[in-house]
Amino acid sequence: MIRIAIDCMGGDFGLSVTIPAALSFCERHPDVRLLLAGLPDQIEARLAQARATAAQRERLQIVPASEVVEMDDKVEVALRRKKDSSMRVAAAQVRDGLADACVSAGNTGAWMAISRYVLKTLDGIDRPAIAKAMPNQNGGMTVILDLGANVDCTAEHLLQFAIMGSALVSAVGRRARPSVGLLNIGEEVIKGNDVVKQAAELLRASTLNFHGNVEGNDIFKGTVDVIVCDGFVGNVVLKASEGLAKMLGIFIKEEFKRNLFTLLMGAVATPVLNRFRHRVDPRRYNGASLLGLRGVVIKSHGAADAYAFGWALQDAYDAVASGLLARTTQAVAQLTAGRPAAPSSETDPAPRPAAAHGDFA
Amino acid sequence: MIRIAIDCMGGDFGLSVTIPAALSFCERHPDVRLLLAGLPDQIEARLAQARATAAQRERLQIVPASEVVEMDDKVEVALRRKKDSSMRVAAAQVRDGLADACVSAGNTGAWMAISRYVLKTLDGIDRPAIAKAMPNQNGGMTVILDLGANVDCTAEHLLQFAIMGSALVSAVGRRARPSVGLLNIGEEVIKGNDVVKQAAELLRASTLNFHGNVEGNDIFKGTVDVIVCDGFVGNVVLKASEGLAKMLGIFIKEEFKRNLFTLLMGAVATPVLNRFRHRVDPRRYNGASLLGLRGVVIKSHGAADAYAFGWALQDAYDAVASGLLARTTQAVAQLTAGRPAAPSSETDPAPRPAAAHGDFA
Repeated sequence: MIRIAIDCMGGDFGLSVTIPAALSFCERHPDVRLLLAGLPDQIEARLAQARATAAQRERLQIVPASEVVEMDDKVEVALRRKKDSSMRVAAAQVRDGLADACVSAGNTGAWMAISRYVLKTLDGIDRPAIAKAMPNQNGGMTVILDLGANVDCTAEHLLQFAIMGSALVSAVGRRARPSVGLLNIGEEVIKGNDVVKQAAELLRASTLNFHGNVEGNDIFKGTVDVIVCDGFVGNVVLKASEGLAKMLGIFIKEEFKRNLFTLLMGAVATPVLNRFRHRVDPRRYNGASLLGLRGVVIKSHGAADAYAFGWALQDAYDAVASGLLARTTQAVAQLTAGRPAAPSSETDPAPRPAAAHGDFA
Repeated sequence: MIRIAIDCMGGDFGLSVTIPAALSFCERHPDVRLLLAGLPDQIEARLAQARATAAQRERLQIVPASEVVEMDDKVEVALRRKKDSSMRVAAAQVRDGLADACVSAGNTGAWMAISRYVLKTLDGIDRPAIAKAMPNQNGGMTVILDLGANVDCTAEHLLQFAIMGSALVSAVGRRARPSVGLLNIGEEVIKGNDVVKQAAELLRASTLNFHGNVEGNDIFKGTVDVIVCDGFVGNVVLKASEGLAKMLGIFIKEEFKRNLFTLLMGAVATPVLNRFRHRVDPRRYNGASLLGLRGVVIKSHGAADAYAFGWALQDAYDAVASGLLARTTQAVAQLTAGRPAAPSSETDPAPRPAAAHGDFA
């Protein structure tokens, strides 16, 4: 039985998306049990509205929460003033061993802060990061992180992201030794800023399969399995990609709607265009992992519909089924032990002696 | 007569691209005179090979250069050891008033450094920036800068980019008061780093039409006319966009090549698909402006073919025809005079007294 806690109140559409998605997910996965965190009356009303069957209800459990983190709540408000929020209750299910993973479509900053506060970070990780698999032209996926949790990163943080991303890809079994690229700029005046240059040195000295610098186009080229960058760059790239894909979709539609002939051509080509649309449907790539925490935490896009939210639940399911957490913890410990001691800016400002790594070995 | 100097040796393909592009550009623009900077014998050979007519030759002038900046030459090598490079000779034509604009498809870092060294920056501008117009879903264009000239920027630099980008858009006549957005990240933990936060304050205090923060997707949504960011972020976004567009193109092709039926559907839809392909053809958007210099300087993509290089020449032509340089100089002076005095980190580490702006008013 795989148990997933859902922040039912999160996201732009809250219960109207999370409840239908939860019911349909239960249908598809007989081995799943869902813990629905949120305002009990509202959840009950939605379940009744969606005509949840007795069989479905048996695999659903409402976990009451009295507060809701709004999409525009500041992190401090979400963390300190809403101690009984559906978000926090969902994360607490994982902490207390009642759920194997938790999922929210709510405010990213709040979800990151709350899940970090409730679950704590893994040994050897200063800062959690947001990772996502993006499709590439080889037909595979490129995992990119960080996508917005950390705007100012040190070289050491980038190394930790590389370790976590590498652990993610090896855990889900696609590669024994995933290749890692450091996102940088190309032929321009100065190749990268100081942090990136230092990170390259740390990566070269690590036991990771470091490919070297990669550029923006390598994300979709599939040059490497994992690409690391700071959260500012990652977030901008992710959103620019969403925007570009949307624009190109609009342009294709416009061309086919130009006149009667083009409409007819479009009608003929519909099966192919639908296949293409399905293949690049961003909803199928919904679901980002908050890595570096002592638990499986998934973030859904805030604007997700029920279909998209189902993919975020699928991410949680796959992570649990592949034993991601145990594997990641182990990989982080191994790789952290294998790399040279480096100062950790956040938890320990002084350089750590190599012996301090003993407990990871 | 519009006079454009071309670095004929630059780019991945050198003369085999620049010479055919130059000849075809001459055909399309009877009011153009081209100055071909490069190794004279090789240029002559290419002109003969391309069967340049006597009429064409009348509007072409070979300007001898004895050296070539290679695509992988370091900036220092290009600048200090190759003082008679085709790049430098091309820029010198503008400096000496013999050409109105110069174009190169060579090494971006070298082209930036050389054109800056030869032409110098405008008053009030510390650092030149690379700007490019990207298509947006409103059917318009969004100018984004910097795209890689400056990886570490201060808030003051971002303000200068905004002034230059704004001047560019108003100069080419599309908007009287172009709206300016500051590229930032959205709902995430910390909204932007310190530099971006400070830049927002400077922009708000300026006389520019500052829209506020924008996110990656706004580039293609057309939310604002100008988007500013540091060169690291801009370069990664530009290249990621190129990569994504390429991947989507490959995916569409693959879907139509799946079997005989889909091939037939593709054949029927060919006119529409070709229109779409033409509309999003990145070669049509080739040509980036190096802004902030005392001359019109255009950078072509290194991998440009003759068709794409023709668009970079067109950029140079349009810039000269619209009086871009005079208008930009004036706009920079006006806007610089209108904003509060701020310390300029590079040319003058101490805060400048407001009176120092007197000569811009």
